Amino acid sequence: MKETVTLSGKDNPTIKFVAKLQNSSRFRRENGLFVLEGLRILSDAADNGVTFKKLFFTQGFREKNEAELDAFLRNSDESFEVSLALFEKISDTKTPQGVLAVCKIPVAVYDLSRVKKGKFIGLENLNDPSNIGAICRSGEAFGVSGIIVSGDSCDLFSPKVLRASMGTVLRLPVFVAENFTEFLKTTSLQKIACVVDKNAEKIVNVTFQNDCIVLIGNEGNGLTDEAVNLSDVKTTIPMSGRVESLNASVAAAVAMWEMMK
Amino acid sequence: MKETVTLSGKDNPTIKFVAKLQNSSRFRRENGLFVLEGLRILSDAADNGVTFKKLFFTQGFREKNEAELDAFLRNSDESFEVSLALFEKISDTKTPQGVLAVCKIPVAVYDLSRVKKGKFIGLENLNDPSNIGAICRSGEAFGVSGIIVSGDSCDLFSPKVLRASMGTVLRLPVFVAENFTEFLKTTSLQKIACVVDKNAEKIVNVTFQNDCIVLIGNEGNGLTDEAVNLSDVKTTIPMSGRVESLNASVAAAVAMWEMMK
Repeated sequence: MKETVTLSGKDNPTIKFVAKLQNSSRFRRENGLFVLEGLRILSDAADNGVTFKKLFFTQGFREKNEAELDAFLRNSDESFEVSLALFEKISDTKTPQGVLAVCKIPVAVYDLSRVKKGKFIGLENLNDPSNIGAICRSGEAFGVSGIIVSGDSCDLFSPKVLRASMGTVLRLPVFVAENFTEFLKTTSLQKIACVVDKNAEKIVNVTFQNDCIVLIGNEGNGLTDEAVNLSDVKTTIPMSGRVESLNASVAAAVAMWEMMK
Repeated sequence: MKETVTLSGKDNPTIKFVAKLQNSSRFRRENGLFVLEGLRILSDAADNGVTFKKLFFTQGFREKNEAELDAFLRNSDESFEVSLALFEKISDTKTPQGVLAVCKIPVAVYDLSRVKKGKFIGLENLNDPSNIGAICRSGEAFGVSGIIVSGDSCDLFSPKVLRASMGTVLRLPVFVAENFTEFLKTTSLQKIACVVDKNAEKIVNVTFQNDCIVLIGNEGNGLTDEAVNLSDVKTTIPMSGRVESLNASVAAAVAMWEMMK
């Protein structure tokens, strides 16, 4: 922990760097870094052993949260006090609390060899950050072993997903499969595809093996044919009425609920 | 069906009236009217026997959707062609399709005497329109008899709830209980309160009676003590990890799933 630096001037390269981390998933990936924002999620992350590469805070935050800031500073490699105007340049929220941290994306996120034992959920091309966040939250609650997200889904480390997940992304084993088809081809897990198809096995009748993965597809189009064809079981959540499909986070919740029973 | 009128001038009182319907739940309630927007949801509503008091469309919409517009016109009491600039004043979307309709809120929505037989879900003080929309969608899919929403929840007929529900609000029996406590006191349904409490009955062990209602509370605070105390059964969805609660639409989905099995 170095001494806190006071930053000023919005063109400061550090500020620009953090703003870009907030806005670009590619930039996050290239640098292996992401941004956490807000008192609650930072406390939670620190409790989970996530160290802060860089901590940013405003005078207003410092004055109101001395004890918490002390703990954050002990958990930080570098720290910066910035004006509220400058903080707004790097914040992703409308009314910022005045604290955020740059953290390392765990390299384990890309290590699919760790996806072997247990009951997983796989998300193919999910595009709504609220859905991914809600699924992570349900996944932790229902005790799944981990979540595998396809490379074309929205970024797990985006500010919106982190917020919607209420920090569960940092606690649950999460993995990114850049090539989801390749992952499905090589994994030894039993693969269960959730589809909208009256002829598929009803989910209450599926025998989930000890090591398995339930696959949920894109909000509008469902799973790709490729993913369905690579699966061992096609299952469906029976629907009545004129509903064409369930919300992806609801389908995932019911599937995980049945898998974990 | 009268002849289509061409409206111009943003200060036109009809335009102001529709814009206010879009923005104010109180104004909707006072006038017993709400606004539906977009080709898909209007087609769906017309198929379900919802007539349009007033239909608004742009020239662009007319040119691209002749057959659909004809059907809508036959289903409308009055119709208005407006410029895109004017349409944007009454639209709730960023890139409007150029068609919307003013419809009557069914009076049955306030007739709680119809909530007697069957399996219902009750929502107390739910504030996120996406949650209410998703719950309506799951409710129709799982075949619940109806949804009762407390008067302090967000308005079922708001543009956001209508969009998030993908039109299920118009197909499913939905009810508004202005005084939710009074409704709970007087209903003969078995009342099952979903709470976060390890000592409550696990939801898989609950015996759902033929005529029952599962109660889900506010996103942040859960059910009020009053609602919990008026219930016959307290149930919980067991959670592991450090998750404090499930997303309300996920909790509702699991509860409805178990109730309807």
